[in-house]
Amino acid sequence: MRNILIEVEYDGTRFAGWQAQKGHKPQAPGSKLKTIQEEIEKTLQQILQEKIILIGSGRTDAGVHAKGQVANFKTNSKLPLKNIQRALNTYLPDTIVISNMQEVPLGFHSRFSAKSKIYRYTVLNREYSDAFLHRYVWKYPYRLDINLMKRQAKVLLGRHNFKSFQAQDKKGRSAVRTIKKLLITKNNDFLHFDIEADGFLYKMVRNIVGTLVMIGNGKKIDIKKILDSHDRKLSGQTAPAKGLCLLKVNYE
Amino acid sequence: MRNILIEVEYDGTRFAGWQAQKGHKPQAPGSKLKTIQEEIEKTLQQILQEKIILIGSGRTDAGVHAKGQVANFKTNSKLPLKNIQRALNTYLPDTIVISNMQEVPLGFHSRFSAKSKIYRYTVLNREYSDAFLHRYVWKYPYRLDINLMKRQAKVLLGRHNFKSFQAQDKKGRSAVRTIKKLLITKNNDFLHFDIEADGFLYKMVRNIVGTLVMIGNGKKIDIKKILDSHDRKLSGQTAPAKGLCLLKVNYE
Repeated sequence: MRNILIEVEYDGTRFAGWQAQKGHKPQAPGSKLKTIQEEIEKTLQQILQEKIILIGSGRTDAGVHAKGQVANFKTNSKLPLKNIQRALNTYLPDTIVISNMQEVPLGFHSRFSAKSKIYRYTVLNREYSDAFLHRYVWKYPYRLDINLMKRQAKVLLGRHNFKSFQAQDKKGRSAVRTIKKLLITKNNDFLHFDIEADGFLYKMVRNIVGTLVMIGNGKKIDIKKILDSHDRKLSGQTAPAKGLCLLKVNYE
Repeated sequence: MRNILIEVEYDGTRFAGWQAQKGHKPQAPGSKLKTIQEEIEKTLQQILQEKIILIGSGRTDAGVHAKGQVANFKTNSKLPLKNIQRALNTYLPDTIVISNMQEVPLGFHSRFSAKSKIYRYTVLNREYSDAFLHRYVWKYPYRLDINLMKRQAKVLLGRHNFKSFQAQDKKGRSAVRTIKKLLITKNNDFLHFDIEADGFLYKMVRNIVGTLVMIGNGKKIDIKKILDSHDRKLSGQTAPAKGLCLLKVNYE
């Protein structure tokens, strides 16, 4: 028995997310959108001819992308990993790429072993779209004051109860997380929000970015008050899924 | 009467090229693919409420992209250009973006006034795709010796008859062109071929890149001989349209 780690890159545009939410119907009822997890699992089963359970480091929502999603599965197959990876990349759609594959100790679990994750949210701050990147950015054509955003973003650093930025209240589950980094950088008309935390609540990044963008646009919002209120109704809009990308999952 | 120059960026994946070839049916018979030129012309006519003739700097094939295509049209409208540009970007699909618009002298002609054009061809030289860029690269998983390619590419620099690299023989039309630059650069697994010339023959860039890639893969091909032969049958494969992008059109 081997435990195999895979790194996955995907364009989430036409997928129902990494994995269906437990007990939830797909976001667009009647739509035929598949999840990335089931696409890979199904293809692995065809290649390895055995039942495979693919465990991701965490879910990403419908429309969210990844450069460095991590998952793992156990197999009795003795096929060289190079061959499995090549076969996967041959049979998977072009929008899902297995960029790395390696054997890890049997105790490794892509979700429970993760120490932190880094997400990048990208805003295109201008009136017109980008013909090549429009699937991966939130086009926001209004004024944004990056310094206002940076100043208030600092408040979110460190260990806090992020209930105000959580889409659904999970009764009894802690909403305490530690944000290790929150960088806002500008590259021409593109604004990047890079956020590293030991874990993220449902839609946490998109709610944080949506709120910061309202602040950047001049809305009188006090992020410290929102954070302390533990009340989702006080925080801002949810930024669209398409601008979000899971960059990296850190282990050890 | 004003003469208006526009700069256009497009993802050519789902278009039948910039403009239909004269006397040619669209490449995929029965397909509903539109040309970029007709999309913009039609939208301009709706905005300006007059007959518009949009002249491009040159055609790009079905599936070819552009960062800096240039076109011009004449109009009696007195609408501010900012408003026309905003309306165009609102009504055009996300894959066509008008990145600039300015008034030019009445004698300016986007095709005849052009001094040179720069195309970039991108090869992804590895076994697996790129989930975000697969529409814009030619994935070539075999060995490529960049130095072999660079050495032979030098032969193409300067003024030559490029008939061997022309897809269709246009009787009586000169195939003499001047290649001013041909740079091959490597960025991780991406190989870029940047070619500047005073003009390009039909499929010239794709035939040059296809031939250079065969050379890089070790085929015994002498590019000097091919060039001197004036015989298309001697040059190599045609690289796929998706890797090609019109970067810039130079004027004055």
